[in-house]
Amino acid sequence: MSIERSWINWYYFDAEAGGIGLQFEEVVKTRRTVRKFAHKPVTDRILAKIVEMALHAPSSMNGQPWRFVIVRNRDTLRKLVELKNHFCPPEKQEFRADFILESPVVIFTCVERARSYDRGIENGILATANILLAARNEGLSGVYMSAYRLDKPEVARSIRDLLGIPPDFDPITIVPLGYPGEDPPEKTIPFHQDVISHESF
Amino acid sequence: MSIERSWINWYYFDAEAGGIGLQFEEVVKTRRTVRKFAHKPVTDRILAKIVEMALHAPSSMNGQPWRFVIVRNRDTLRKLVELKNHFCPPEKQEFRADFILESPVVIFTCVERARSYDRGIENGILATANILLAARNEGLSGVYMSAYRLDKPEVARSIRDLLGIPPDFDPITIVPLGYPGEDPPEKTIPFHQDVISHESF
Repeated sequence: MSIERSWINWYYFDAEAGGIGLQFEEVVKTRRTVRKFAHKPVTDRILAKIVEMALHAPSSMNGQPWRFVIVRNRDTLRKLVELKNHFCPPEKQEFRADFILESPVVIFTCVERARSYDRGIENGILATANILLAARNEGLSGVYMSAYRLDKPEVARSIRDLLGIPPDFDPITIVPLGYPGEDPPEKTIPFHQDVISHESF
Repeated sequence: MSIERSWINWYYFDAEAGGIGLQFEEVVKTRRTVRKFAHKPVTDRILAKIVEMALHAPSSMNGQPWRFVIVRNRDTLRKLVELKNHFCPPEKQEFRADFILESPVVIFTCVERARSYDRGIENGILATANILLAARNEGLSGVYMSAYRLDKPEVARSIRDLLGIPPDFDPITIVPLGYPGEDPPEKTIPFHQDVISHESF
């Protein structure tokens, strides 16, 4: 039998087998960003598994400061698109946020400041890295987006307003998720020899 | 046969089987931070595999701005300990950096500014998340440490001087690595229901 196992069919294959559980390296190597999604809902059960993986991320002083806001509401996401586009820097205009409305669900990762020990950004990103990998392990694909800009506090403030995030928490990342609706573009990884140096830079 | 498979023996078991490749969820759930390491060298071959996993991380505009400096030299690491302790905030004194000298090798993750699109920190942390997971997949355990403080440019500057990092690159993280020499302390993960909210915070 020779079924060509394209990237996208492979995803479906795994998802429909009910999360058979991939090898770690397979997950890392085949995780890709897509911005088109299939019209297939993402269940709360799968989101719970993904969030569980996020909770195993390391955090400063093991503070585990995370809170995850799961948004499906189209009005909220429309407002998110508007504000992300509004703050999109000129050099990133090819990655406008409109695609968010294609995704069935978005996970916002927030951190509590008191349990972040001045490492809220780091803690939030480490959890989000696990979300992106865990999504792939479930047959989903996500997009990494930031919920703040250090030079523009208005970005985080407008997301805070959008979701009702209290002042003691900060939004860190925004991950639109879904079953992929496109094959991702080619991606070339350099040889490790070309990016490693020994003892000094 | 009933061999008790403690966390630490499990690590050795996998490592000695030559990187049999664990399931993704197993890697995520059993990755732990330890600060004591076995007297067992980490080969360049294993470090190359770990760095390869880091290179599959997402990056802003797919800029892949990473460079990894692998340090085994004790003099360099002694200076690193000194400077990390010097800049250690009072509330983190229980996590002083002396343990770094126990580890056989340290990976510094740096990013090139021009290919980071103002997201150097994010890019560096996302690669480091993969390093920590890939390490566990190889039977190793690492410690996440930051190579900068936003409020203290002297931290990054002193690491830049230590490793000869050129001005167009920034050091982001420091990961001491080794085969674990202790069982990690207990870690409790909350139920996902307690950290998820729907539609708004």
